[in-house]
Order: sequence, then C-alpha cells, then structure tokens
Amino acid sequence: MRATVLHTSRDIRLDEVDAPQLQLDTDAVVRVVASCICGSDLWPYRGINPVDEPVRIGHEFVGIVEQVGSSVSTLTPGDFVIAPFTFSDNTCLLCERGVHTSCVNGGIWGRDDKQGHAVDGGQGELVRVPWADGTLVATPSQPSQEMVAQLLTLSDVFPTGHHAAVSAGVTPGSTVAVVGDGAVGLSAVLAAKRLGAARIVAMSRHEDRQRLARQFGADEIVAERGTEGAAAVREILDGIGADFVLECVGTGDSMKQAMFSARPGGRIGYVGVPHDVQINVPAMFGRNIGLAGGVAPVRHYIEQLLPDVLAGTITPGSVFDLTLPLDRVADGYRAMDERTAIKTMLTL
Amino acid sequence: MRATVLHTSRDIRLDEVDAPQLQLDTDAVVRVVASCICGSDLWPYRGINPVDEPVRIGHEFVGIVEQVGSSVSTLTPGDFVIAPFTFSDNTCLLCERGVHTSCVNGGIWGRDDKQGHAVDGGQGELVRVPWADGTLVATPSQPSQEMVAQLLTLSDVFPTGHHAAVSAGVTPGSTVAVVGDGAVGLSAVLAAKRLGAARIVAMSRHEDRQRLARQFGADEIVAERGTEGAAAVREILDGIGADFVLECVGTGDSMKQAMFSARPGGRIGYVGVPHDVQINVPAMFGRNIGLAGGVAPVRHYIEQLLPDVLAGTITPGSVFDLTLPLDRVADGYRAMDERTAIKTMLTL
Repeated sequence: MRATVLHTSRDIRLDEVDAPQLQLDTDAVVRVVASCICGSDLWPYRGINPVDEPVRIGHEFVGIVEQVGSSVSTLTPGDFVIAPFTFSDNTCLLCERGVHTSCVNGGIWGRDDKQGHAVDGGQGELVRVPWADGTLVATPSQPSQEMVAQLLTLSDVFPTGHHAAVSAGVTPGSTVAVVGDGAVGLSAVLAAKRLGAARIVAMSRHEDRQRLARQFGADEIVAERGTEGAAAVREILDGIGADFVLECVGTGDSMKQAMFSARPGGRIGYVGVPHDVQINVPAMFGRNIGLAGGVAPVRHYIEQLLPDVLAGTITPGSVFDLTLPLDRVADGYRAMDERTAIKTMLTL
Repeated sequence: MRATVLHTSRDIRLDEVDAPQLQLDTDAVVRVVASCICGSDLWPYRGINPVDEPVRIGHEFVGIVEQVGSSVSTLTPGDFVIAPFTFSDNTCLLCERGVHTSCVNGGIWGRDDKQGHAVDGGQGELVRVPWADGTLVATPSQPSQEMVAQLLTLSDVFPTGHHAAVSAGVTPGSTVAVVGDGAVGLSAVLAAKRLGAARIVAMSRHEDRQRLARQFGADEIVAERGTEGAAAVREILDGIGADFVLECVGTGDSMKQAMFSARPGGRIGYVGVPHDVQINVPAMFGRNIGLAGGVAPVRHYIEQLLPDVLAGTITPGSVFDLTLPLDRVADGYRAMDERTAIKTMLTL
C-alpha cells in the first residue's frame, strides 16, 4: 500500500510500504477515506523536531473498517469510523476519567504500540488500529462526500479547539479571546460559540482567517499581537479583559499575550503544544489567573460533538481550504509550511 | 488607641497610636473584638520582606461597628461584623465577577486607601474600614464567645482554604490531596470535605496537625514530602493520583509535589503565596494538569460559608491553638515563628 513517509526535514514522499495485518484480536484494519495535515506535523517536517530516520506520519483520519480482530465487538467491516489522534482502550481508569491521551494502553499513530507492534501513520491507504473498540467511533450511517470533511475535523482539530474552551470553562454569556488563528484557534472560536459565549474576540492578522473566524462566531477581530494585542482585547471587553482566553499557539509570547488578555479571575485554556513555555506563578497569583488544558483527549469528546456535526449545526470542516489527493501530499505540506493553506485535507 | 506596629524584623510592639476617624462618608470605624496572626505576617516579621520603617500590621479581624459614614446603608453601630483581609466596594465590575481582591477601589489593611487616607492594621483596637457597605459582613445577631473564633476564620484562613478547593474545582465523590499542613492547608482539608470529596489525603509530618487534619476530614496522612510524598499519594489514590490537589505552601518544591500528586487531567488549586515559583508548561501539557487559584477573594465567599459556621456544621476555628490577649501580640508572633502554634488568636 502507499503511505506517507518523512525521510528527513522537508523530504516527504508517498512510499510503497507493507500493508498492515491484524496483530492482536483487539485490532481493526481501516481503509482511509480522508486524512489531513496538522500544524504539529510541520515540526518534524521543518526539522524543528529532528528526524533521524524515515518515519511514518499523520494522525488524523477517517475511513472504512476493513477487518476486525476476533474480540472486537462494536465494529463491523464496512462501518465508517472516525479515528482520534491517539489510540486508547476507553476502559482504563484514566479513560474513565476522560483523559484518553493518558490511557495506560494508549499510543500514537506511526509508532509502536505497547505490545511492540508497528502502528501505521494516518496519511496512508490503510491503518492498523490498536484497541479498535476503544479507539474508533462509528457513524450511524455512511456520510456524504461533503460530510466527510466535517467528520475528519473530529479526529483532532475541532475537539482540540473544544478542549481549549472546555478546559478554560467557557460558560454561556461569557467573554472569550482566542490567541492563534491557525486551524485550532479557529476551531476554538467555533467551540466557544457552540458553548454559548456572548462575545468572542479572535486575534488574527490574516484576512482569510479573520473571515473564517467571523463565520465561526467571532464578534471582534484584534490584529495586534503581544502586549498591544492584549491591551486591545481588554479595551474591547469592558476594560478588564476576557473571562476566558483560549491559547492555541504554544509559544512563550502567545502565553504572555493570553495572560494579559484575561481579566482578573479569568481562565486560560491552552492547547498550543508548548515549546519552552515557562509561567511565572507570582504574576498569576495576584490576578487569580487559572490555566488548564494540554493534549486534547479527543476520544472523550467525539461522541459529544458528533450529533451537532451530523445535524449540520456546526461546520468545522470549513478549516480545510485546500483539498488534494494523497499522492500530492508533498504539495499539501508545502502549502501548510508556507501558510498559503490553513489546513490541507488529503483524499483517497 | 493601641495597635500593633512592626518596627523592624522581629521587633513587634503594641504602640499607642492615634485613634482612627471617619474620613469618607463610605467609611465605618470598627472596634476589634478579635484578630489573628497570618502565616503571611511572618514574612515581614522574619525580615524576608524587608521592613524599612515601622508599619501597622494585621489583616484578619472581627468586631463591633462603632461609627458609620453618612452614606453607609447596610450597617448600624453595634453590628458584629467580619472583615475580609482586603477591603472592596463589592459593586465594581471585578467584584461583580467575584474577584474582590482586584476591586478597582480596593486595598489592604495597614496601608493607604486609593484616596490617600491611612487605613489601620487589623491587630489593634480600632480600624477605619473603607467602603464599609462593600467590605464588612454583619452577622444576624451577636455571637457567643466561642463563636467569635469560628467567625474570625472567615476573615481569611478558612475562605482561603475554600478558594483552593473551589479553584481546583473539587466535586462530590472526588479524591483530593492537600499539600501544606499550616492553618490554610488544614482549612483546605475542611473545605474539600464540605464540598463532598470522597477521599482526602493530607500531607503532614506533625502529629498535632495530622490530628486536626483527620478531625477536619482527612482520610489518610502522608508524612513524606517531595517526589516520595507524591508517589505515596499516587499509590493511595488508585495508583494514578488525586483528581484535585490543593497547594497551600507556595514554594517551588511544594508546587512540584502538587504537580506529581495529581492524576492526568487533575487540577491544582493554589493559594500558597508563591515565592519564585516557575511552572514548566510542557511538563503539564502531556498530563493535562490544570492550575488555578491565587489570592483568595474572601469577601466573595463569606456569605456562602457563614450559614454553616453559624449552624456549627463546621468548626474552622479549631485552627486556633493559641489564644492571647492583644498586649501579648509579640508572644503570638514568636509562637507562630517557632511553629509552636498553628495559628494565634488575639483577643481584646
């Protein structure tokens, strides 16, 4: 089968590799229908995370179940399924508490599972899925072509934005500022709107992203960054700042921008994968700023979000502004790297 | 009148000072019935916070209203009142949001108010109270002698423990670990119990404090500290750690202990005044650890906690294990400094 392999920084190819087989009776094999490229895929692509040997890549996909192991009970070949960006058994103490990303049996696509068997990346034709009952969420029926893009967002980007909003604790009638206008930041705008925020300020300097932010529910746009941007947010929001700030970038600068965009007693939900971010706790103490979030336990959220997606109440798939066939995966990475695309979908 | 003055490190005296007068029509003058010494009073006392000139001290008191300004409408001379450890107007945008410690007109005892008038410290005979309607909470009737100690805890220590529990988000049936066995940590145990925590682990090495922790609702005691203490907490709590950790110390070590006592997805409520505490966000991200708290907006909580105190359902006053007359205030500081007392009450 064909699967995406990152050979070294900026050398990404669709290679011929061995098709996966069921290894354990809890496995499934899924034929990928659509996959996509994540901002976090760009780190190894750009060489910020070093790539020592060719690696399989991609962790967001939807597809059709092709085979199931003998103990898989909730899935049948032919089911359309959404795969969260980590696999998990959905039964351990930590999955029970909604932290599927810390599942004792969990792991990530493109690496070995805890039994030592290789797991495929998501940007390929077939994927062996460990803990298939726990990991995959089947849709009630086969989706339309257009719905596929919406469902694909449930594998990572939309629940990650949702995790920022839920971690911050967004409540109906509240004020929200969103730091970051990537696909996750835009998804966070949509998530905050869905949770009933009354006023949403999106921070963005790019016209296409500003437009999508408004479409997703942003009431105001702040183009400034840093302390200037935070001051603009505070001015817009009653002179005090936002009840909730959703930090969707992950740098020290963006975290500071979030801190100073929050009102005293405000909460920051952070999902931007942090790179060398230190927080000065004394600076938070006097203003009662809270901080929660982390790697999104997507599996925990899919079933909550799926009905609104299927009903068309929300259209998170609008983050995809470039769709390419899988064999043009290298072009997809280039577009994301050069920021000519917000998010690239790969179809098979 | 007599009031406590810290002249320089470890030189604390009850001095004769001018009695306060009403300065603004929103003021009241309160005759102090009981005051107490806070762990945070020990920093200037010990010289950790430098003392450049003699300062009035004390920020926890209850008393009887003696005079009210012409625009004070909710208080009458003779009312028994609880003073939170900061004063606030209780009407500004931030008070409305429950963050009275960030009140636009607020301030702290023993310093000037925003109009430039001196405000008395709490460890004295009389106190001028700015924004009396906003600041003071009157009890429905005159309390008994024994109830005075219970009510005095509402000025700081018990609502501060409560703030740790509320900021973490303690829910009925949850597991809680408390870092710190000072009066605030012990109050946090009581607050967690009151909020319905199912299992509470108190971290303490001192027998008298362990006993009080158990009396307040702790189910288990962990005497170890640091990574060893955190490992013990995790072992007791299902091998994964606490749903909520209440950090009531404020050092880098105690914060680390809190971090590693929390389960993935756990939340830390922090009220230990932080001294040079840095948080490494990447270490929180993968485990989805949240952190919230800060300086407790006590005024926001007094009315919520008062009924349980008046009903005797909870007895937070048990943190006072030493009661001295005000003229022995220096002995009270010495006992707190040498940790022979958990918390000292001063009576007038």
